[in-house]
Amino acid sequence: MTTSREIQLAARPRGMPRPTDFALVEVDVPEPGDGEVLIRNAYMSVDPYMRGRMNDVKSYVPPFQLGEALNGGAVGQIIASRSDRFTEGTWVVHNLGWRELALSDGRGLFAFDPALAPVSTGLGVLGMPGLTAYVGLLDIGRPRPGETVFVSGAAGAVGSAVGQIAKLKGCRVIGSAGSPEKVAWLRELGFDEAFDYHVVSARDALSEGIDLYFDNVGGPTLEAALSALRKHGRVVACGAVSQYNAIEPAPGPRNLAFVVGKRLRIEGFIISDHIDRTPAFLADMATWVRDGAVRYRETVVEGIENAPAAFIGLLEGENIGKMLVKVGPEP
Amino acid sequence: MTTSREIQLAARPRGMPRPTDFALVEVDVPEPGDGEVLIRNAYMSVDPYMRGRMNDVKSYVPPFQLGEALNGGAVGQIIASRSDRFTEGTWVVHNLGWRELALSDGRGLFAFDPALAPVSTGLGVLGMPGLTAYVGLLDIGRPRPGETVFVSGAAGAVGSAVGQIAKLKGCRVIGSAGSPEKVAWLRELGFDEAFDYHVVSARDALSEGIDLYFDNVGGPTLEAALSALRKHGRVVACGAVSQYNAIEPAPGPRNLAFVVGKRLRIEGFIISDHIDRTPAFLADMATWVRDGAVRYRETVVEGIENAPAAFIGLLEGENIGKMLVKVGPEP
Repeated sequence: MTTSREIQLAARPRGMPRPTDFALVEVDVPEPGDGEVLIRNAYMSVDPYMRGRMNDVKSYVPPFQLGEALNGGAVGQIIASRSDRFTEGTWVVHNLGWRELALSDGRGLFAFDPALAPVSTGLGVLGMPGLTAYVGLLDIGRPRPGETVFVSGAAGAVGSAVGQIAKLKGCRVIGSAGSPEKVAWLRELGFDEAFDYHVVSARDALSEGIDLYFDNVGGPTLEAALSALRKHGRVVACGAVSQYNAIEPAPGPRNLAFVVGKRLRIEGFIISDHIDRTPAFLADMATWVRDGAVRYRETVVEGIENAPAAFIGLLEGENIGKMLVKVGPEP
Repeated sequence: MTTSREIQLAARPRGMPRPTDFALVEVDVPEPGDGEVLIRNAYMSVDPYMRGRMNDVKSYVPPFQLGEALNGGAVGQIIASRSDRFTEGTWVVHNLGWRELALSDGRGLFAFDPALAPVSTGLGVLGMPGLTAYVGLLDIGRPRPGETVFVSGAAGAVGSAVGQIAKLKGCRVIGSAGSPEKVAWLRELGFDEAFDYHVVSARDALSEGIDLYFDNVGGPTLEAALSALRKHGRVVACGAVSQYNAIEPAPGPRNLAFVVGKRLRIEGFIISDHIDRTPAFLADMATWVRDGAVRYRETVVEGIENAPAAFIGLLEGENIGKMLVKVGPEP
């Protein structure tokens, strides 16, 4: 028996989450039983989609429960094992984050080789956000060389990978983000154009037309993209972070008529449907990262007690690249 | 030299068109020149998409011009020919409607065999509306046996064909329409469920869920369908007749977030991109019509002078099945 700290959902947020919606709680962790392993987390992930699970509504994943830890992505090392499948010392990516120690029956654990890259990348460019970018852009969006791809939330973990993969596929790439520093980073990454949506409207920035929009934000940016899309354009609907804190559902774009007139396709996806693409993704992405063809950044907050602030900061756009919380030792 | 009557656009409608937006004009028609043919129309078509062309905005087809005839679909007989390709007496479907006599250089004329079916069907179930239903449902929507298909505007030329083809493909079919008489006809056609949207809300009628929505109307019906769609559902965006007379663009559905959560695909199409599907369509549809597997109705208005009233009536939902104007003798 040992103890661990975890972040529980204390109240369901209304609008933007507040620190009081979360509680840091010390809990007892029993020794692993038969078939179980004990994981000591090094990093936990905060991801925009978690905001939806904090509401008490039916969605593609069940809502978080009050008084329970906010299971999110994490990477950690197995420090005790009574499983045949995982040995002590193995690093694993899993969904028992927002806690220091996690007891697992082995389901949903994926081994991560620390020789490949820093273990934190297992939550970012080589993890779920990277796979989301890869599948969303290539399988759902199907860009052709010479096309113009626009990605919003472009300085985030998903968006920055989308833009760089699109460049590798021969596309012209435009990215939007929320600060001069982010825009400067997008230019460093090789985006053909990058703009700060606080300064330039998407309508103006996209006036020359686009072929594919990878949507992370929804709202007015989606409306501007629908206007800018050329014939046979596509919208990859990945997320709508501009709407996640909405108390009343916002009206949709006023220009959906373009879907008929311009023969558009708007298609949503959930990455958990596409786990079978992981081997192809890892083969490509590990190569691209090693060669410097895809670069990444991380915004790391220290200490599990600061996870709620990190999550709120993420929703406010404070991160560049992947937002992580360091909760224990790394290799 | 002879004379013909035609309907010209006299003023651009604001909202619902009024009779004064149209003018009946007698014009001179010269003898056919080299390569030309003269067509005497039997039927002209009024179609919802024509409302968009009456606005002075860029779209997938150029706007109609003031003081010119409203080119729309028509079927007629060649009564004089100086073309190598078309002989006198041939029946042709073409886009020089809203007039009694049409002079053509032969482009965009399709021969129609009057032995196949009444020539009026060349503007309906065996013409553009039928092809729209066939391509939209089968190629864009891709229904699977056992799925539930919902079609709005189901008693129109396109919608009634969509529902019957979906039944032939082993789907459960729900249709919405705007009068008890239309609903009764849908039941006769074999729709599993049919409802009058003035009496029952789409939200209630679709509460058991759908897999595919063939959208002819847009607006609140689209919002209800997005809520009712199951995982991996599809919206075939064919038209939005509820919005065609809008003076200000209406806000879109408030529940577009379902596109991500339910992995939906919303896809628009324009039938002129799919003319290559005509042979397959005609082979299937002529068989289905002959066997009684697909039935159709026509609402026929007599006399070109009544074409504006027919068009306004179409937008007000007065038609059952294909809305036609009889402007000359048929075989």
